[in-house]
Amino acid sequence: MLSKSTISLLKSLQQKKFRIEHGLFLVEGNKSVTEFANSSYQIEAIYHTAAIDPKLLKLSGKINFTEISLNDLEKISSLKSPQEVIALVKIPAFPILNTTALKGKFAIALDGIQDPGNMGTIIRTADWFGIQHIICSADTVDVYNPKVVQATMGSLAHVNIYYVELAEFLGSINMPLFGALLDGSNIYKTDFGTEGLIIMGNEGNGLRPEIIKLVQKAVTIPRGGNAESLNVGIATAIFCSEIKRNSYK
Amino acid sequence: MLSKSTISLLKSLQQKKFRIEHGLFLVEGNKSVTEFANSSYQIEAIYHTAAIDPKLLKLSGKINFTEISLNDLEKISSLKSPQEVIALVKIPAFPILNTTALKGKFAIALDGIQDPGNMGTIIRTADWFGIQHIICSADTVDVYNPKVVQATMGSLAHVNIYYVELAEFLGSINMPLFGALLDGSNIYKTDFGTEGLIIMGNEGNGLRPEIIKLVQKAVTIPRGGNAESLNVGIATAIFCSEIKRNSYK
Repeated sequence: MLSKSTISLLKSLQQKKFRIEHGLFLVEGNKSVTEFANSSYQIEAIYHTAAIDPKLLKLSGKINFTEISLNDLEKISSLKSPQEVIALVKIPAFPILNTTALKGKFAIALDGIQDPGNMGTIIRTADWFGIQHIICSADTVDVYNPKVVQATMGSLAHVNIYYVELAEFLGSINMPLFGALLDGSNIYKTDFGTEGLIIMGNEGNGLRPEIIKLVQKAVTIPRGGNAESLNVGIATAIFCSEIKRNSYK
Repeated sequence: MLSKSTISLLKSLQQKKFRIEHGLFLVEGNKSVTEFANSSYQIEAIYHTAAIDPKLLKLSGKINFTEISLNDLEKISSLKSPQEVIALVKIPAFPILNTTALKGKFAIALDGIQDPGNMGTIIRTADWFGIQHIICSADTVDVYNPKVVQATMGSLAHVNIYYVELAEFLGSINMPLFGALLDGSNIYKTDFGTEGLIIMGNEGNGLRPEIIKLVQKAVTIPRGGNAESLNVGIATAIFCSEIKRNSYK
């Protein structure tokens, strides 16, 4: 059984200010917890019901496991239907953005993405396509938000996320800057070359004017129907796919 | 002010059985309500606060408008942060699936999609790319679920959705059947031709064995990183994009 104070601490981690205060976040579900357990993230504790994946328990040499009741699990979970296991994970120091690590590759830059589901899906999609770096404006949703962590399906453990002053960063880097805009050139006729940053904007407002000024090539996914816009997670995936298909030419 | 019984009716429409019983569903937000008001859907009533888009009020010749308090709006909304307007809309008779309408085009078939956000995003994406028909297995999430309606951002008003016995339907239609599978041929090397059905599977389980048997061409989005799978909404969008890019060759 969990003490009241532990429950209170774990619940508080649904809010960013307490995640920052304690330097901790939660990861839920066998699949996601396994990904984090096998990554460089440091797991402080694992709380689980009897339904935990036995493979996870094999890690018990290094990790502190505590079996708890479903009732307690429901109290600390951020999910409507809690899964069988929740890990308490240490927030690492944000990685230093070494621009030479970006050279010869594609990375994603996000200008003010707000929806945790979109953010998580973008991280999962980047991981699928082998994109290792996502550079976010300072006001982009916190990547340790439980809904973001959930939507990444474990991919947060594989992708490097940076929070920066985006305009300053883009102004300083010597790489092709592609911006997703509604009035750019047709994505299907765009030569992305061999490296660059794909810059995606906020759900409602798109890219900020000061970011648009820095875009070297505006690119558009042409519309064939009636929808006014594409979801930003979907648009990001189509950019990733177009870059990926280049390697099969 | 809304009567208790009206509030109770409107709230009940968050559940499928009451939507079926009353033949009604709710649409929330200026943007989505405008799309429905300008479509062939029949709007029974519009409930709004003073913050309604004035353009919507111009439709008042045909529609019954009722100004309500934010408090009442919060009671009937399915959203955490309710928007300024909610429309009560009649569920139309499901359209008859006329297979000749599919000829010479691409359509999407969904085998048991469960997540309302995924379903809504797929409808919005289809609408963006000009895909007009989505054929769903009978156990696919109800398209009038408020979270589906919300995620379509109005595109539900533009796309035809059918619920069918999917295996029976696919067995009877004379069109190329492409299935999204993990062990198919590379999507970037696939010739989709000029017509066909793109069949997407359930979030956790993929396509059912009886559907896989009917697939004529298994197609895969190749993986370049570590993620185990792509979100089904993302995968559907990449298929739509690949078909669309053919028209720019």
